[in-house]
Amino acid sequence: MYKTALLMSGLVALFLSACQTLGTPSITGDTPTTSTQPIVILIHGGAGSARAGGMPEEDEMAYKAALSDALNEGYQILEQGGSSLDAVQAAILLLEDNPLFNAGRGSVLSSDGTVSMDASIMNGADLDAGAIAGVKTIRHPILAARAVMQDSPHVMLSGQGAQVFADDIGLQVENPDWFITEPRREQLQRVKDRQNNLKISSKQASDYFGTVGAVALDRHGNLAAATSTGGMTNKKWDRIGDSPIIGAGTYADNNSCAVSATGWGEYFIRATVARDICARVQWTGADVQTAGDQEIFEIVELGGQGGVLVIDTAGNYAFSFSTAVMFRGARTEIGEEVAIFKEHGNKEHDN
Amino acid sequence: MYKTALLMSGLVALFLSACQTLGTPSITGDTPTTSTQPIVILIHGGAGSARAGGMPEEDEMAYKAALSDALNEGYQILEQGGSSLDAVQAAILLLEDNPLFNAGRGSVLSSDGTVSMDASIMNGADLDAGAIAGVKTIRHPILAARAVMQDSPHVMLSGQGAQVFADDIGLQVENPDWFITEPRREQLQRVKDRQNNLKISSKQASDYFGTVGAVALDRHGNLAAATSTGGMTNKKWDRIGDSPIIGAGTYADNNSCAVSATGWGEYFIRATVARDICARVQWTGADVQTAGDQEIFEIVELGGQGGVLVIDTAGNYAFSFSTAVMFRGARTEIGEEVAIFKEHGNKEHDN
Repeated sequence: MYKTALLMSGLVALFLSACQTLGTPSITGDTPTTSTQPIVILIHGGAGSARAGGMPEEDEMAYKAALSDALNEGYQILEQGGSSLDAVQAAILLLEDNPLFNAGRGSVLSSDGTVSMDASIMNGADLDAGAIAGVKTIRHPILAARAVMQDSPHVMLSGQGAQVFADDIGLQVENPDWFITEPRREQLQRVKDRQNNLKISSKQASDYFGTVGAVALDRHGNLAAATSTGGMTNKKWDRIGDSPIIGAGTYADNNSCAVSATGWGEYFIRATVARDICARVQWTGADVQTAGDQEIFEIVELGGQGGVLVIDTAGNYAFSFSTAVMFRGARTEIGEEVAIFKEHGNKEHDN
Repeated sequence: MYKTALLMSGLVALFLSACQTLGTPSITGDTPTTSTQPIVILIHGGAGSARAGGMPEEDEMAYKAALSDALNEGYQILEQGGSSLDAVQAAILLLEDNPLFNAGRGSVLSSDGTVSMDASIMNGADLDAGAIAGVKTIRHPILAARAVMQDSPHVMLSGQGAQVFADDIGLQVENPDWFITEPRREQLQRVKDRQNNLKISSKQASDYFGTVGAVALDRHGNLAAATSTGGMTNKKWDRIGDSPIIGAGTYADNNSCAVSATGWGEYFIRATVARDICARVQWTGADVQTAGDQEIFEIVELGGQGGVLVIDTAGNYAFSFSTAVMFRGARTEIGEEVAIFKEHGNKEHDN
């Protein structure tokens, strides 16, 4: 039934093609390495259905401003010769603190009314990676993931243990209530009411998938990817979604590409979306747009929904998503663009 | 420094080639579907260094007997037309109850002296999957993973939440002490002493990677994979390894292959080993032995160690491992074989 679903590539018209190699940058002067290496950062702030009646203009402006701020925060690091790892982390720090997005403060609520956050980060240069799942008081889950990568012998920590690790290294914590916003309380109640009243199958989709993510390419030619989320509204049993799973929600490998995903996590885990896209680039010769579109098409065929950011070491990049909305943005040496709806200058692929 | 490492494919001599298609089976009569569809089950019980002075003969016999029992348990299900999912589950149930192996009773101990078990299972027919991480009282973690797949909307549950889920559906639990054996207590002490005395880097490898796993092909042509483990001795902070990560320790897809891994989990997560092997089969045309060997070679290059079981829908199968020892076995319509050391009839690949 999803055979006819159209996959949307974002920002394509605005950049001629989101997938083409970015032109030779014109930056000169004190850039630390060669000026022929393009720098790019992409971010997303979730994907999902369009709200009935459309989005109020002030909301749209607020989302776009937040996306723009996060892009600029990361891009400045790239411009100064900083690493793609630092750039994606910096972008996500802003989005985690912004209650508009489902990550950090403003995370969606689990069935028990608390937040439970997941994050991961990966370095394309050496495949080093870190992830945390199910933390409740760490202000910036992405910093915990980075610390797991750099300061522990492990890749993935969870629950209470992850909290202890974060405390041991002195990461900032907040009271659990600090993360909870009134709109998220109301959202949880709506989801519970709907499930109770309509006896919706427990496998029924959420209609919106939060999560924030970023991928970047730095002047040294290194890729990085990072993802942070509060998961799925009304989740139970310490469910872990795709965001902290290396290969599902996040992947980066200089031999292929970097990916951050947002969507119905269970499907993204089953299809190992992030690594699969990179494997398509690496082993089938697909460009980043084709690889992303093919993978999102498979997700839709399985019954899921969502979207991805994809970038390769030449600076080619793509947004692929099956949803009506994907909060997204790109910043390159040509300029910056942010978009929300599929209508904004998208090419449609009839896969 | 690992460039010269030789990758070992097990049982090759014994089956001419572990990688060739198994001949036409001669079973006739009341098998539920066509008799031309081969059935195969492979299992592993961990991999690692050979013990100095070799393994006492009685230990070797005990391991081999346990592997043989588990193979037969799974194979009987396949012979009767049962599913590959049920076959891999049945094999793992026996290994989880056997204190020789690092899964279920006899799991290695975490830094705090408790067990913390992970498991996952995947159905190649529809990519459905289930996993649990960090459970402490569920007698059979593999049954919890199966229940997550079939009886929850999620793919992965963790910690206390996973325990609550298991309790809700009535899975058998045991007192935490039931899982702990004296040899594992001594092993934890040895690891702690060694790390304290020698100031071994926290990134230093374990010398032995437990974990049990199985992959199977049934008469309906469906693949399945499952993995269960107590993780890494002396682990901290609720570390999650590769075993419960779909795409890292476990993967099954009828379009390519099924894989169960055992090894230094952090490396297996970073390389998404299980899915990568299947992606190589699917997109590079590699046979299962080549795909497994290539992937294990990459793990060694990264600094890791371990091994995998791989099987495709034609019944081609392979063991690839970089360690001196891999407890392993195969049962086909031709016969059964179990092996431990690399010397037992292995071909060596000079990748």
